[in-house]
Order: sequence, then C-alpha cells, then structure tokens
Amino acid sequence: MKDLSRIRRAGLEQKVMTADEAALLFSHQMVVGASGFTKAGDSKEVLKALARRAKNETLQVTLITGASLGHDTDARLAEANALYKRMPFQVDRVLREKINKGNILFTDQHLSETAELIHGYLPYIDLAVIEAAYIEEDGSIVPTTSVGNSVSFAATAKKVIIEINTAVPCEIYGLHDIFLQENYPHRNFIPIISAEVRVGRKSIALDPEKIAAIVFTHQTDSPADIAPPDAKTTAIAAHLINFFENEVKTGRLTDRLLPLQAGIGKVANAVLAGLEKGNFYDLSMYSEVLQDSTFDLIDSGKLRFASASSITVSESCYKRIFDNLDTYREKIVLRPQNISNAPGLIRRLGIIAINTAIEFDIYGNVNSTHIAGTHIMNGIGGSGDFARNAYLSIFVTQAASKEDKISHLLPMVSHVDHNEHDVDVLVTDFGLADLRGLAPRERALLIINNCAHPDYKQELLSYFERACELRQGQTPHILEEAFSWHTRLRETGTMKRI
Amino acid sequence: MKDLSRIRRAGLEQKVMTADEAALLFSHQMVVGASGFTKAGDSKEVLKALARRAKNETLQVTLITGASLGHDTDARLAEANALYKRMPFQVDRVLREKINKGNILFTDQHLSETAELIHGYLPYIDLAVIEAAYIEEDGSIVPTTSVGNSVSFAATAKKVIIEINTAVPCEIYGLHDIFLQENYPHRNFIPIISAEVRVGRKSIALDPEKIAAIVFTHQTDSPADIAPPDAKTTAIAAHLINFFENEVKTGRLTDRLLPLQAGIGKVANAVLAGLEKGNFYDLSMYSEVLQDSTFDLIDSGKLRFASASSITVSESCYKRIFDNLDTYREKIVLRPQNISNAPGLIRRLGIIAINTAIEFDIYGNVNSTHIAGTHIMNGIGGSGDFARNAYLSIFVTQAASKEDKISHLLPMVSHVDHNEHDVDVLVTDFGLADLRGLAPRERALLIINNCAHPDYKQELLSYFERACELRQGQTPHILEEAFSWHTRLRETGTMKRI
Repeated sequence: MKDLSRIRRAGLEQKVMTADEAALLFSHQMVVGASGFTKAGDSKEVLKALARRAKNETLQVTLITGASLGHDTDARLAEANALYKRMPFQVDRVLREKINKGNILFTDQHLSETAELIHGYLPYIDLAVIEAAYIEEDGSIVPTTSVGNSVSFAATAKKVIIEINTAVPCEIYGLHDIFLQENYPHRNFIPIISAEVRVGRKSIALDPEKIAAIVFTHQTDSPADIAPPDAKTTAIAAHLINFFENEVKTGRLTDRLLPLQAGIGKVANAVLAGLEKGNFYDLSMYSEVLQDSTFDLIDSGKLRFASASSITVSESCYKRIFDNLDTYREKIVLRPQNISNAPGLIRRLGIIAINTAIEFDIYGNVNSTHIAGTHIMNGIGGSGDFARNAYLSIFVTQAASKEDKISHLLPMVSHVDHNEHDVDVLVTDFGLADLRGLAPRERALLIINNCAHPDYKQELLSYFERACELRQGQTPHILEEAFSWHTRLRETGTMKRI
Repeated sequence: MKDLSRIRRAGLEQKVMTADEAALLFSHQMVVGASGFTKAGDSKEVLKALARRAKNETLQVTLITGASLGHDTDARLAEANALYKRMPFQVDRVLREKINKGNILFTDQHLSETAELIHGYLPYIDLAVIEAAYIEEDGSIVPTTSVGNSVSFAATAKKVIIEINTAVPCEIYGLHDIFLQENYPHRNFIPIISAEVRVGRKSIALDPEKIAAIVFTHQTDSPADIAPPDAKTTAIAAHLINFFENEVKTGRLTDRLLPLQAGIGKVANAVLAGLEKGNFYDLSMYSEVLQDSTFDLIDSGKLRFASASSITVSESCYKRIFDNLDTYREKIVLRPQNISNAPGLIRRLGIIAINTAIEFDIYGNVNSTHIAGTHIMNGIGGSGDFARNAYLSIFVTQAASKEDKISHLLPMVSHVDHNEHDVDVLVTDFGLADLRGLAPRERALLIINNCAHPDYKQELLSYFERACELRQGQTPHILEEAFSWHTRLRETGTMKRI
C-alpha cells in the first residue's frame, strides 16, 4: 500500500505519515479545502482521522469541498461535531439533519462559484486535503476520479495534505484537463469550443514546499447507487426523447443534438438509455458527473465525447473504466468544476441541461433544494449554473408521490432556486410543457394541462382561474392561499382536501 | 429631413416612403422586431403609424425589442390594441396596466437571452424596424444610440424597415462594436477581455434585398428623467462607497475596482457621483446603459472606458455627446445586448453589478419585478444576467417607503428574481449587509440588523426567531405567515400592525 514509486519528487518521502498523524495538522476554526465531487476522488483516510480526533476535543472547521463526499465521511464529521460550516454541497443524511437543526452552518452555493470565493474574498484555505494518483517529479499532482475545486485549493491553501490512493492506477494520467483561471482583473477567455477541446495541463501545479503530509490509502470510491428505471422515470424519459425527436423534425436541432448535461440519478440514466435507442448519433456531453449510463452510451458508439468534473459509477463500471483507460482517455475528460460549470461555456456550447426538481409551480418556478421552503435536502449544486445559461433548460420530477398525497406541481413553490426566467421545459410522468417564449398566463395553462397529476389538476386550474379573477396581474396569485397545499400536508399528511 | 445622402447604397432611394405607407407592410399576427433599448435608438415614426393603423382594424402583432421604447410608443400601441404579445422588457404605464389585466401577454426575459430565442426556436421575425444613422454602400446600417437586438433582427428578419434619423449625426460611425455570434453548434468564443476591446464591425450587416422601406425622421430620443439625489439615495451611495473603500483596504479590490455595471436610476447616478469624489481611478464600466453620470465620470478623468448597449441621457447630455463625438468615440462603445449582457463576459471581467430591488427578504432573495407577487412593474431586464455571474452582485433599495407603511425588507419576497445563491451584498439607506460565504441563518441576522427600517426590525427578528423555534431548517420559515405583511398591506394599507 505504501508505494513510494508514486512519490516521484525527490525529498517528499519524508512527508509520509499515517492519517492520524496528519490529522494533528488541523486546528480549531481552520478553513479546510478537500477534494471530492459526487463521492468521487475524496479523502478516504485523513478526514475520517480528523473526525476521530474531534470526538475527544473541541475542533471545528469550515469544510469546503468540490461537492458531496463518499464513505460516510460527512456523517462521521457531523457526528463528531467537527464541522462549524460546510459548503458548497452535501448529500449526507446525518449532516443534513444537523444542518436543519441549526447545529452546523451550510452555505449552499452554485458549484461554479466556490472557486471564485476561494480566489476572491473567503479567508484563505488553511489546509487542503487532496486525493492523488501520484506526485510528479515537479511536485505537481495527478488527481483521481474527480477534479472539483482541487486546482484552486492547491493554488491557494497554505498547506496541503496529499492522499495517494494506490487503488487508482497511475495510467489515469492524461484523463484530466487542468486549467487555472487567472485572477481578476487579468482573466483571459477559456478557448473551449466543444466538449473534447483540451486547454490545460495533465496535473495540478503545487508548490512542493506546501506539502505538509503524504498519506497512503488503497480504497475505491463509494459506488453510485444505481436504481433500475421504474414506470415513472421511463415515462419521463419517453416524453423527453419524443420532444428531442420533434425538435429534430422541426429543424431546431440536428440528430447530433447539442452537448448534454444531466443531473445525477435515475431520470438521467433513463434519458441516456433512451438516447441509446433513438435515432441520434455523434452525441457529446458537457456535464458535471459521468455515470454508468454515460459509459454505456460511449460503448454503444452513440456518444462521441464526454466532459465532466467527476466519475461516479457502480463498482462494475469503475472496474470497466480502469481496465480500459487507454480507450476512455480518448473519449472523456475531467475538468475543474469552475470550468465544467462555467456560465460562459454553457452558453457558448449551447448545452441541453436536464436536472431534477423537488417541486415546480404553475408559472414554471423550480425548487431544487428545500422541503416546505425550510428544510434543505442536498443543495443547488450545479443546476443553477446550467439552467440559467443553457440553450435548453429542462427540469423533471414525478407529478405526485407518497401514494399521491404529495403533488410536485403546486400553486407556488416554497423556495425558488430557478425562476420562471430560467426554465424552458418541464416534464413529469404525465407529460411535457414547452415554455419557450410564453408569458406566465400561457405557461400556467400548459403546465397544468400537460404535467399535473389528475388528482390535482382541477384544483390547480381553480387556483389559477380564481387568481386571475381576484387579483389579475402578470403572474396571478392569491398570496394568502399560495402555500396552503404545503400547510395542508403538514397538518393532515396529504395535499388533498379531505 | 429627407437627406438622400444618408442612403449610400445605390438603388435603395426607391424604397423611401412615408411612415404610414411603411405601416401597410404589417399584417395581423406578425412577429415584429424593433430597435430600441432603454428609450434609445427606437423607431420614432413607423411604430406610431402602426398604432394609428391598428385603431381602425384588427391588427395585433408580437413586438420584440431590445428593451424599453421612448416617445409613448408602447402606450400608443397598447391603446390601439396593436399588441398581442410584448417582450422582453417594458416600462410603460399604459402597457403595464393592460399586461396586468391580462389583455396583453408579456414575456419577461433575461435581456441576454432574447437573441438566443430569435436565432433558436421562436418563429422567425417577419418584419423588423431599425433606426439607423445612415445606410452604407454595402447595404449595412450604422445604428444610432443603441444596438439592442438589432443585429439579430437584421440577420433573421424576412423584411426590414429602416428609419433613418437625421437628428443623429453621421459622425456616430465608429461608436459601435457589432459582433454576431455564430449559430449553434458552431459558436466561437468572444475575445473581449476588458471593456475597451473591440471585436466586431462598425455597422450592422444587412442584405439590401430585405429592405422593404426606408422612412426618414428627425427626432431625438426621449430624454432620461434625471431625478436629483435625495437623502435616501445619498445614504445608499455612501454605504456602497464606504464598502468599496474597505474592499480596497483589505486588498480584495484595487483602487481601480473592477468593471462596473449599474442599473438605471437615481441610485446608480448617486453611486457614480460618489466614485467621482472617492480615491478611485482608471475605472471602467461594462454595463447595459450609459447615463449622464457616466459621462460626468468620464469628463472627470476617473472613468477610463465605458461599454454598454445604449445611451440614455438628458437633453443637455445628449447634445454634449453629439458635440464631442471625436472625444467620446475613444471612451465608449455600444454593443449588441447579448454581448453587453453575456454571462461568460460578466464572469470573465469580474463585474461589480449594482441593481435595484423592489423588495428583498431576510435570507437575501430579491424581487425586482412584481408588486405583491402578482402585478409586474417593468421586468427583470439585464439584472439576472449580471447578478448571477458578477464578481460582486449588489442590490439596493430603500428600507421603507410611503410614509414607512411599506417595508422593502420582508420575511419572504412575494416573487423571486434573484435567489439567495445570487446575491452578495444588500444595501438600504440604513446600512449594508455583506453576505458572501454566509449561511441563511447568518444572513438573516446580518440583513435585519444592518438593513431594516427601525419600525420593522423587531418584527423581522421575531419572525426569524419563531421560525427557527417552530420549524427549524436551513432556511427557517413559517409558510402560513410568510406573506402576512403583503396581506396586511392589501387589507389595511400598511404593513404595520395597527
């Protein structure tokens, strides 16, 4: 496990230590940057050792990552009271509960913007923990299955702990495109004009003087939970594929579509599986995460190239990638998240962005983050970077859930992450609403008629009609009634009138 | 007035006609594109003639402009029932009333995105009306005081009416930077790396075959309403200048700041006047509109260069600009609005964006468009393009108005245009809240303590504390009470408990 050939910079071997020894480098109130994006390329040892240490003393840090961590690391840190503040994203049940109780602060941030904060106005990162495949002769580091914010952490952190993961083959070299944006006011353009264009180096620059510790580990990433498609996700995917086919027919898109972004989860997998069967070819992705379905689509010959910031796949897919790195190295690239999610690139490439909503309303506003406007689920992630600037901004959700006691289409969403100006297409298992160019009153009728669950359609129509009558306006609302469905759910356990 | 030397393309003189003759080119249900952005460079004759014609027959069009029109044109069109749908922005009282009654549809759109729709999936523009200073030998047109969406209209409209405005000197040539983005998937990067970089041509390409009519006019733009600074705007500007000075002290900004964007109005003018007095120099603007204060700041030597999509100034400033075009041509540039508001350029340049809110809430969500969540004022304009992607996204508003019966800081905004993820700094006449990196519970206390009007502070604190107690959560809210201030205002005429 302690493979010193992975430290190619002379003199750095003396920095090798155990995770528990490295954990002594943390101190109370530090700002810590850590690699890891959608459970990929995260610290496997050092953050857990930090949690162990924090159990026995007052030791709370602000932890900034790429996105979510695997291996229950966030849960362990939360349980050990090791977190004062967490940003920019998380998906952990234990951590979420502490955040919602107000015990841990959570700054929920557009994933492209964290690097801006790090280089701009946050306190500098005191200590970074970055997973690497190996350290180069020049002291630069070759990352593993994600890039996330590691480039910014390496550039700005006062000290860095490297976790060398020997479970990742050294042949991963060449999979990454490492590009560091200049600081203001000297920033240049990023010359990426299609998903496969590489503009950077293959390893992350790091001043070897900043390396405070090197810890070895040999653990794969937490595998993705791949749920098989069900009737609802299949229906949503079918509506979307049908929509794309129609866009091709009308000439607004070609059968190569435009670069795809797909959020994590069942629906994205179902849509990509649908594209495998459809009459599309020479497709590309410019996304945040590469999932199992991405690799299936590559293997099918339909997907030319996929760019993202991480690889989050099942155990078998993980093995398939590492066994075929020479092939996939020509087909995929991993970039820093401020490049994968860069607003200008998303607009320039003309992305088709498909993301999941918690709920949306009759005017097309989308809530991606909060239950009942109050309790956070995961965070906005990259959905805002993509939705605002995409060529097509698509949100999907099931029309109703929990034995249909909850409608996901509401008079008004309880929290707005993507507003009416940012949403082009809404899809539920019942149908699709194409909102492009429509005014709010047109949107309302289309959304209710095409997307509502039948049990809720009449009451949604009634709300809209009464709002038009009573209050008029560009966006008719009866404010004192707008959240009544949420209130009814809280009080009676269902959104239905009993 | 009919100055044929302004038609330099041979053969086009035969297209000269009166506005009423040109108005016969419109037909029912057409999609019309018209120049004009913040009342500058708009059609002075033809759209009014369309309104006259529509009074006597069924003639309704979808009217797409750059932004707002001057000379009561929107009012005349609305009164004549000439509008089926209007987009992407308006500021007219009569039109607004018809929109809010549901008589005219209004698609309220990010100003950078209208061009995307025009080139992408809207029905093609049937007829465009574009104000020009003159027509070049090659048939291209030299625009006047705005560029707006005219480049996209000229490129995609089936037919074009040119309004030559002889009140604009031909010497305006060279003031514009005309850049047409390639259509997807062939789009390249826009190599603008600072406000003064020019990347395009000096006139708008137009196939002379598409010119259906040329109408002469001799009218200046509607002058900007310049309200003198009052105690509130002066206080807001002072808080902001103080903030900038502190950013310089801490080293996060230099005394050149970063390129400024400022929304239209009193506050923007007060801030720019404040910068004239402060210890800043070599400033630049990358904005939507150049106002009187911009030219004062240029003349003071503090502002190196200003880029925008239009010039909207007082009568005297208008004259000053035209009398000194040789000087200002080196100091300002007018661009298409999808370039002035391009998300990627806003991020790349590191814009400091200052925009006005109607109301904001204790968590930093901003409403820029709707009164009581229902009735539209103007529209989102470019504020979303800038707020999402700026280095610093600042929103300003008075803490209270109408004899303090209305608080502009609320438990929850009634409509969200800019959400908590997009807002860095909030300012009222009472103070400034710097929200960067903060979690919602931190933001709430800071916003209430720094920005609230004293009459409302206790009740805002009480709402926040009760919400934390009763509902907990990342963003504590009592949904059934969240809009109670709006309801109280509607029922009793004040937000105060009586």
